[in-house]
Amino acid sequence: MLNAFETPQDAEDAFYDAFEEGNIDAMMSAWAARDDIICIQPIRRQAIGRQGVREAWEEVFSAGARIEIEVHHQHWTESGDCAIHIVLEQLTLNGDTSNNRPPPILATNLYRNYGDGWLLVLHHASPTPPPPGRVQGMPQR
Amino acid sequence: MLNAFETPQDAEDAFYDAFEEGNIDAMMSAWAARDDIICIQPIRRQAIGRQGVREAWEEVFSAGARIEIEVHHQHWTESGDCAIHIVLEQLTLNGDTSNNRPPPILATNLYRNYGDGWLLVLHHASPTPPPPGRVQGMPQR
Repeated sequence: MLNAFETPQDAEDAFYDAFEEGNIDAMMSAWAARDDIICIQPIRRQAIGRQGVREAWEEVFSAGARIEIEVHHQHWTESGDCAIHIVLEQLTLNGDTSNNRPPPILATNLYRNYGDGWLLVLHHASPTPPPPGRVQGMPQR
Repeated sequence: MLNAFETPQDAEDAFYDAFEEGNIDAMMSAWAARDDIICIQPIRRQAIGRQGVREAWEEVFSAGARIEIEVHHQHWTESGDCAIHIVLEQLTLNGDTSNNRPPPILATNLYRNYGDGWLLVLHHASPTPPPPGRVQGMPQR
């Protein structure tokens, strides 16, 4: 059994710390020990379950980039055993803070408390609009 | 008070029916009557609360396109008062089924049951990878 967290924010901090560190075991310790956890990385299909989610993050970490993440909270709500955080993630890869940085990623993080604390059960991350003047290659509704 | 639905799927059907019909009142009747509902359309920022979500859909519908949607369920899970559906949405605009159709949209739909039935509380929709050979304009992790 994984150690759950006292608050959704504690689970979120563990998630982003592990993301920055590229630490796969720490990453997986932020997630619930369930086969129905879901991770959607930007412009990817869904990864489902502990094994699927682990493999998705192993692929990210295997790229070997040094990742720094600024997390900007946009909205959060907690009701019963369910907490939703909407965050903007500004990634910096290998210290490159030039204009080549990708636009921020907008992520939904869903935490549940199954009785002994909070853990991540869903991470859905997706692109935000590029700044004016940059080419927009993806469809909009 | 809105009429809630007997199952998460009933709420989902109401949501996609309203989406196809461009019916803003029917659309809003699929959503919970709460100020913390969240709607993220592809490559957009979040819309929050009844008024924000309503305005986001009014903007979609005001484009006036005739929209048909094939919904392909990818994954669903229900635990307590919380249900998550992951779906692929293949949109057809104005009957154009040519290769110019955008790649499917991948969406997370979160439903809650606050005691009297199920309603939508979160819709996060984002692009999927374009088919091989098409230009990829957005960043990947």
